[in-house]
Amino acid sequence: MAADIDEQPAGYERLLSTEHATAIARVAAAVAERRPRHVVFTARGTSDHAALYGAYLSEIRLGLPAGLASPSAITLFGARPDLSEALVVGVSQSGGSPDLTEVLRAARDSGALTLAVTNAPDSQLATTAELSVDIAAGHERAVAATKTYTAELLALLMLVEGIRAGDGGLPAEERRALADLPELAARTLTDPVAAQLAPRYRFAAQIVTTGRGYAYPTAREAALKLMETSYLPALAFSGADLLHGPLAMTDPDVPVLAVVGSGPGGRSMGEVLPRLGERRADVVVVGSAEIDGATRLAVPEVDERYAPLLDILPLQRLALALALTRGEDPDAPRGLKKVTATM
Amino acid sequence: MAADIDEQPAGYERLLSTEHATAIARVAAAVAERRPRHVVFTARGTSDHAALYGAYLSEIRLGLPAGLASPSAITLFGARPDLSEALVVGVSQSGGSPDLTEVLRAARDSGALTLAVTNAPDSQLATTAELSVDIAAGHERAVAATKTYTAELLALLMLVEGIRAGDGGLPAEERRALADLPELAARTLTDPVAAQLAPRYRFAAQIVTTGRGYAYPTAREAALKLMETSYLPALAFSGADLLHGPLAMTDPDVPVLAVVGSGPGGRSMGEVLPRLGERRADVVVVGSAEIDGATRLAVPEVDERYAPLLDILPLQRLALALALTRGEDPDAPRGLKKVTATM
Repeated sequence: MAADIDEQPAGYERLLSTEHATAIARVAAAVAERRPRHVVFTARGTSDHAALYGAYLSEIRLGLPAGLASPSAITLFGARPDLSEALVVGVSQSGGSPDLTEVLRAARDSGALTLAVTNAPDSQLATTAELSVDIAAGHERAVAATKTYTAELLALLMLVEGIRAGDGGLPAEERRALADLPELAARTLTDPVAAQLAPRYRFAAQIVTTGRGYAYPTAREAALKLMETSYLPALAFSGADLLHGPLAMTDPDVPVLAVVGSGPGGRSMGEVLPRLGERRADVVVVGSAEIDGATRLAVPEVDERYAPLLDILPLQRLALALALTRGEDPDAPRGLKKVTATM
Repeated sequence: MAADIDEQPAGYERLLSTEHATAIARVAAAVAERRPRHVVFTARGTSDHAALYGAYLSEIRLGLPAGLASPSAITLFGARPDLSEALVVGVSQSGGSPDLTEVLRAARDSGALTLAVTNAPDSQLATTAELSVDIAAGHERAVAATKTYTAELLALLMLVEGIRAGDGGLPAEERRALADLPELAARTLTDPVAAQLAPRYRFAAQIVTTGRGYAYPTAREAALKLMETSYLPALAFSGADLLHGPLAMTDPDVPVLAVVGSGPGGRSMGEVLPRLGERRADVVVVGSAEIDGATRLAVPEVDERYAPLLDILPLQRLALALALTRGEDPDAPRGLKKVTATM
């Protein structure tokens, strides 16, 4: 898992290389040409969080309504929604889950433009879809996905920006911002605080993660990593949903990881953090800005849209360090296999 | 909270009365006439779970792609997705959350057919939407929503079936099945097991809830009730997602509440329950059928589509009883207000 985590800057570099950027641009151009009216994502587990990021990007950057499909409506209940004007995107590192493949097949049958984003270009999912993007993350050794998650994020970002540009290529400004990403990721990974923070949660009975907008997928993914590797029950809420009920659960014994960006999503956490303060919750902030002297997992300041590509890195390292601190084996989580086949 | 819970059979009866059924049928007919191509729900907290049920119904019963919108894309990031072919449904008992109203306003501006489902027909949300359904649940005294949740479920069911019928009215078979609902709900509420189960979780540090398809909203809502009233960290997963990671977290010390219906959703839990068994998790089943002698919150057998209207009842009573067992005041959850205003 440590090796997978450390490979992420190189993974960014690879996806941004001419070879892969061109391949993604070709797919983006094909999507732009077909002018879908809305976007439906389908994914499971970690990839579901990448899909959620893709949905935010689609709505904000493309102005296309976007949502996450419940595969069960199609796979179990036989729903055959009319997806003829949709772009349906399956996201899966293995491309091996039968339910996602069935969703893409049903979508294709109903006239949708289908796209697979996988780390396995020969997988069932990739070959079922009309278009396919290879996230090229290399073999992932650990069961808990790390480098395939961030490669999915970057691939989806490049896709969406390419669709937005129309011809599939990234605008110069976008290319410049992304060119810095491998170095920023490498720098983020050298921060010792993530590992130092692990003992704080050695005896935690649960943890809450929260973020809004682009930061919400990060909160969700951090929670999943902590559950998978440290068996720590981790509850992820959008900052707004936290105020609609679960806030009651927080108190000084409930640690909170709050992902706070530098844009509108981060600013809106301004209504959440004081409420957590009133409940005297133990808050650690992930972000580029210092907040009221709170303990912080620092990440370089970037546009909020790129922040998910950096914010998750210290959280992955925290999950790894906490698993080791708790005497668990993060490379072999109990009860899990690398490829999970559900219907 | 106890009084609100007990009023649910009467609430079903009221919504099914000619006065309210006719009002809902009129709205359903108006929607059917406009032939939306897809459905977007927007909601928070408890109402988000009713919306999730609405999304399953829309996909399975209407063949319309359906999803839940992230208000923040619109309210914080200024996204203006083209919703001109969408039915956009805001679900909120109070109708008072500014973010949902802003989503409906933006949707209406882009040409969407907008619909509010609320317990407050004069609220901002209801008056902003082109169409409005009054769930007529009466004043809800407790902060934790119970009777407004089930009234939202029934209103959405009547709406969807009315849209499916085309003229807004319910087919005779549907009317017959729903006519039994108040009595089935009343019978479900008399089962003593829900309250008897509370001591089992007196010292639980967390709980997992799970279900698939129509039962997934029930699992989500049960988790929220337990968090709001008993401050018990409760993690809800679709049965499939549970296998994609969080399963690792379950062990004999992690109680699991599994909602198992009598149709495809329940049958698909057949791949989940044995995996929980391998992890020796403590499983209590909610459903109409006995399963391997597991402790069970029994509900009458109905089509899986109607089951959410009954399955949640013993879970609400469990949340209430557990709060009392833990010495908490379920009518005044710490840190919460009845109307939560988020942007």
